[in-house]
Parts: sequence; structure tokens; C-alpha cells
Amino acid sequence: MAFSSSNQVNIERFWTTIEKSAEIGRGREGGLSRLALSDADKTIRDVFVQWCREAGLTVTVDQAGNIFARRAGLDDTLPPVLMGSHLDTQANGGRFDGILGVMGALEVVRTLNDLGHQTRRPIEIVNWTNEEGARFSPPMTASGCFAGAYDLDWVHQRPSDDGATFGDELRRIGYLGDAPVGGRDLDAYFELHIEQGPILDAEKVQVGVVTHAYSSHGFIVEFKGETAHAGPWPMERRRNALVAAARLLVAVDDLGWEHAAAGGKATAARIVAWPNKAGILSDWAQTVCDVRHDDPAAAAVMAERVERAVGEAAARAGCTGKVLERWEWGGRIFDDAMIAGVRRHADALEYSTRDLPSQAGHDAYFLARVCPTAMIFTPCRGGVTHNNNELATREDLLPGLNVLLHSATERANR
Amino acid sequence: MAFSSSNQVNIERFWTTIEKSAEIGRGREGGLSRLALSDADKTIRDVFVQWCREAGLTVTVDQAGNIFARRAGLDDTLPPVLMGSHLDTQANGGRFDGILGVMGALEVVRTLNDLGHQTRRPIEIVNWTNEEGARFSPPMTASGCFAGAYDLDWVHQRPSDDGATFGDELRRIGYLGDAPVGGRDLDAYFELHIEQGPILDAEKVQVGVVTHAYSSHGFIVEFKGETAHAGPWPMERRRNALVAAARLLVAVDDLGWEHAAAGGKATAARIVAWPNKAGILSDWAQTVCDVRHDDPAAAAVMAERVERAVGEAAARAGCTGKVLERWEWGGRIFDDAMIAGVRRHADALEYSTRDLPSQAGHDAYFLARVCPTAMIFTPCRGGVTHNNNELATREDLLPGLNVLLHSATERANR
Repeated sequence: MAFSSSNQVNIERFWTTIEKSAEIGRGREGGLSRLALSDADKTIRDVFVQWCREAGLTVTVDQAGNIFARRAGLDDTLPPVLMGSHLDTQANGGRFDGILGVMGALEVVRTLNDLGHQTRRPIEIVNWTNEEGARFSPPMTASGCFAGAYDLDWVHQRPSDDGATFGDELRRIGYLGDAPVGGRDLDAYFELHIEQGPILDAEKVQVGVVTHAYSSHGFIVEFKGETAHAGPWPMERRRNALVAAARLLVAVDDLGWEHAAAGGKATAARIVAWPNKAGILSDWAQTVCDVRHDDPAAAAVMAERVERAVGEAAARAGCTGKVLERWEWGGRIFDDAMIAGVRRHADALEYSTRDLPSQAGHDAYFLARVCPTAMIFTPCRGGVTHNNNELATREDLLPGLNVLLHSATERANR
Repeated sequence: MAFSSSNQVNIERFWTTIEKSAEIGRGREGGLSRLALSDADKTIRDVFVQWCREAGLTVTVDQAGNIFARRAGLDDTLPPVLMGSHLDTQANGGRFDGILGVMGALEVVRTLNDLGHQTRRPIEIVNWTNEEGARFSPPMTASGCFAGAYDLDWVHQRPSDDGATFGDELRRIGYLGDAPVGGRDLDAYFELHIEQGPILDAEKVQVGVVTHAYSSHGFIVEFKGETAHAGPWPMERRRNALVAAARLLVAVDDLGWEHAAAGGKATAARIVAWPNKAGILSDWAQTVCDVRHDDPAAAAVMAERVERAVGEAAARAGCTGKVLERWEWGGRIFDDAMIAGVRRHADALEYSTRDLPSQAGHDAYFLARVCPTAMIFTPCRGGVTHNNNELATREDLLPGLNVLLHSATERANR
């Protein structure tokens, strides 16, 4: 069957899929707490794989736990068009973040199946492992590995708070696959996502055309000091690592405020310390923080300020401080032709559009390193996300889904 | 047998006792990690009870897990003279903090047994539960309960980080006794302790005569905010509870520095947050902090500044902040006659002495509310404590032990 410009996804079927997903790994009311490689992640993976097989797709799992579901093309030797995102969530996550991109891709395939339309190139759906970084650091671990940014052994060794490693947990839930991670040709990658910001909702725009990504710099910082008594030990001899960590996080927050007028953000995300108890000074602390800015130069300035703040915070507390890990993403990384394609299809479908940057981290950032990539944003209410109140309706999501359907199909028929 | 002014404890026997204790709940090299009501705490309790029984003492355990070991007096109807401290340690604790006071009291009793000397009043040794507050907050929980400061049910409900309650853990390790907590007459309480400060060691003084206690105010503070994405969420809409907590801890540390010249201290001791993960703002955080000063008025000023800082830190982060618990101790709480007795016995034994305040928290502070109380300090190397490098030698400890022997025996013979 030929593919027509009037074809649409089945929004009711898609909605049922989202609702079924929202029953797996429930968190606070209305939300999800489906941490990467948890039992709940295994369950949604099992369900997703079953749905893919029911749609006639061939499922492959790679050694980083990424799941690929392939629909053959008329010329199956051509590199595939890939669509997807992630099924893991934050501890207080919503039902759409990531899930829209995976289940939306599945809905595109189901629609093509309904139409009996076979594309020239193969199409693949992907679920990337541990996008959120809520259980293993850094975020976007497995798409980073796919793109060659992270070594597979290093990924397998990533520890969780609960003492398990990424590799052990992959094995435990049965998703340590055989396929190599990356190293194969892709024609293109599309990621449909809720905006995770308030702009589209506030302006009542139906489709966000993602032009570029905020420049983001993330840090894992470690401080070392010495335990001593919280009482008699003189202030000038104290080496309380918790104080160093708290000072860094305050400096990071201050930095965010300094750049807030220009849309910059800085986040004090995480702190752990030892012994972290009443009556004793802590000799170890670790923090995670990040800075983001639309202007790469401004983001670089912020990042450099964080590096300096590590030393200042450590010195103030008589400790040593060290950046253990550092990650960086963003910029004008998306493919111009694909961006233009997204805008053109939205126009053809008579949806209102707006160009905008992506401010969160996404697997698409890593994919952009290995193939032409584009992101499509849908509105979400008030921009609320990483919160159980994250909300989008059928009406919010249908335009983005149809733009994905047309963009990916056209690309696969090139 | 009469008791002579030349009697001394058996320092070698005492040292063996300390070394045996140091094998139970080993932590980092040379130190202990014997958290209250842990398996290691059970083991040292069992050993201590056995030693007490071997010394002919009658052992009673109260409903807060405090262990009392009684040596009958000639007039056994008189209120007893109590001596003791605690056998629990910090996570990175030493071998002497607390242990000296309990095992020192045992050595006093063993010495009286050697001498065949029976005192007029009964003598009791006590091991107080959870002095350190390293597993359950607040510190000195069970001596506080004994003195009527804390309700027994409330004590039993205190939670640990590992999810257990004080009451459950008492039951689990078999130290939920039948005896009522407190409510009985005591003639006096003596607590022998390492100084936990550098003064005696620096000045090469053998015995510290504790005149009073630093005024200390402790706080458990909770902040509430809202989760949101660490990326797109605008700075001005953020309600990151972790930022509020970090700001409070920095304010507390600043406060310590402001008062450092006059010997004041302020400690950022603990922080926990949720979800406390990369990529998401935390909606909950809790901190423990304290302020201490030799001058009660200055300590009160510092405490009031902490209370104000809670509101300021919360406001800066768009959160709410609340002091959940607050404790206070110190002042001129010790008994003048007993202090004079300690000094007199040290002089008679030809030990050098120095008057000094106690800067740490001690069970003696609560005991002082219910009976005449005194503390005796021994030197410890460099004042290092709450650290595995805590160190005292036989020579450091013998004078204090002998002063305890003579002070307690005289008191028991009144």
C-alpha cells in the first residue's frame, strides 16, 4: 500500500498503551517510579518486547541492555531509520517522559502495519537503558555507549545506591543481550518527547521543532576530609567533607541564579556523605551537580566556575576536592534536513509549530554523534516533569505522533 | 578490709579489658564501628555482663536497654553510687570514648574485690544505650530517658537509617529489660572519660577536673520542596529541598567560624535528601546540626541564629523549613562537693590537675538532673576522637582511673 499524506496514528490505541505502561512501576499518585534495571523495568521491557513481537518485529538486545525491534524494509540491506527513547523513569517520574518516544514509535509501526505499507528502508524502534541516571550515573549511559562515548566494561561497572552494578542488574533481569553495542550504520534517528518545559503549553503550540540542545555540563565531585568530634574539635582544625559539599552546592545554586535572566540553570542534584551522623564530622562526601545554558560559551563559563568552586569549597572546609566524572552535551547537533522535514510535515498536517531548544538531556544527543538526528516535542501541562503530576492529553500528543509517523516514513522511503 | 589512700587499680588488667573490647565491632584500623544495638553492641554487652557476673555483681537491664551491675553495700538499702558511660561508638570511633568510663568502673569494682573492701553504700556500674546518636537520634537517648527528659515510648520509636526502630533493635539483640527506666534514688554519678580535646595532652596534665559543660544546642531540621527536572525548570520556579538544606549547613558552618575565636563551634553533621539523584530536584531533605559555646548566653545567641537560618535557607530555595527536634544540654550542672572531691583525691595521689569544661555531650549531663554528678577527664593524644586514631596509653589513663577509684569509694563510704 502507498502511504498517503492524510494518514494518522490511532490515538486511542496509543493512549491504551500509555495507560498500560503507567500500571507498571507505579510511584506517587499518577506517576511512575520505574528505575533502570529494577523489577519494574524488567516488567515493562517484557511487555514492550511482547508488543513488538505481536507487531511482527524482530527483537534484538545488545550488551548494554538496549532493545531494538526491527521492521524489515523492501531493501533490507539499507541502514535502518531508528525511532525511540527510554522506558525507565525517575524515582518520582511521570508517565510520558521517555515513554512517549518508545510507545509512539511502536504506534507508528502499528499504523504502518494497519496500512499494509512497507517502507524501502528498515525501521527500528529502540528502548535505551538508564536514560534517567536515577539509578546509575551518568544519565544516557547506554546510548552514550552505543555512540562510543562510554566503554562497555565501564558501563557494566556503574554502581547503584543499592550496591548493585549495571552489569549485574542487566544479567539479573535477563536483559544482558548478545548484540554488540553500536558500531553499525543507521540512516537516521528520531526521538519524540514531551517538551519538559512550559513554552509549547503556554503558547498553545502543537508541535515543537527542536533546533538544538542546551549546552550542559555535569559533574560528580568528591571531597575528602577527616572524622572528628562535633563538639570539642576546634573550628580551625576541622576537615568536614560535608561542609565542603554543602558549600559547593550553594555555589552551584548561586551560579544558576546569576545566569537565570538569560535562561541559564544550575542544579544541586545529589549529596552523600560518610559517616553523615550526629556528633561526628564526615570525612567523605560526594555530590552531583550540573549547569546548562542555551549559549555554549556561557555554559562553558558556568562549567569553569563549577570547577573553581570545587577547589574553593574544599579549601574553605580544609578538605581536598576532585571532579571524579564530568559529562557534557548539547549544541547545534541535530540534522538540518531532518529538522526541516519535521517542520514541513507539521505544516502539511496544519499543526502550529515553534522552533525551540531542548533543555533536558536526551539519548538523541548521543545518537547525533553517529547519524543524522532530530527531536520532535509535544506540549506537556505547565512544563511539569520529573514529577508524578507530569501531564499530557491525547490532544497534546496526537500532533507530535503524526509528525513522527510522516517524518520517519518519508525518511525510510528515501 | 579497710580502704587505704595508697590503693591503686590494676592497670594491666584494665588494659587487657580495653584490648578485648577493641576486638568487638572493629572498624577502620585501630578503631571501632560499634553502633548502638547492632550485633557488635550485643556482643560487647554479653561480654560485659559476663565480666560483671564474674566480679560478683547483680545485673539488671531496664526497658531502655541500660545495663546496671550492682555491688552490694554494707547498708544495701541506701541509694547507690553509680559509675559508668557507654560501650557504643561512632561509625568511625575509637577504643576509649565511653568505653573507658564503663570498663574503668568495672576495674574499680575488681580492685575493691581484690582488696576485700565492702563499701557502706552499694556501688553500681552502668552502660547507657546509644550515647553516640550514631544510629538513633538524639544522642544520649537512654540516659535522657532515665533522667525523665525523653518518654520511653518515644525512645522505642526512634528510627535508624537502616529502617529499624530503637525498640525493635533492643528486642532483637535481647536487651529489652524489665526494669523501669529511672525513677529511683541515686547517691551520686561519676563518669570517667577521655577529654576528647587537646588541652590535657598539650599541657601534660594528668587529670582533668571537669567544672562544667559547654552549652550545646542540637537541631533536626526538615525542608520540603517539589521535584522537577534539573534541566528545563526555570530557576525562579525551583523548590529544591537539597539547596535549602545545603544553605542551612553553610550558614551553620559560618556561624561556627564567627564564634571560633571565643571557642564556639557549630557543626553541619548530617544531610539526607529525596530523591537525591542526578536530573531531578529533591522535594525533601533533613539535616542535623549543632552549636556549642562555653558561655551559655553566647550558645543561646548561636541557637537563635540557627533557628533564623532555617527560615532564610528555606526561603532562598522556595521551600518550607521546620525544626523537627531540638535538644539542649550543658551549663554549671556538676556537683561542687564532688568536683572538689575529685580535685582533692588527684592532689593526694600527687597527680597534676587542671580545671576544664566538657565540650562534648555525655550521659553525665542527664544524670546531673537526677543526682549529684561529676566527670573526670584523662588526656588523649592530640585530642583526636570520633576517629580510629583516637589514642590513650596506660600512663594517660592510670591517674584518672585511680582518681575514680578513690572518689567513688569515698563517696560510697559516706
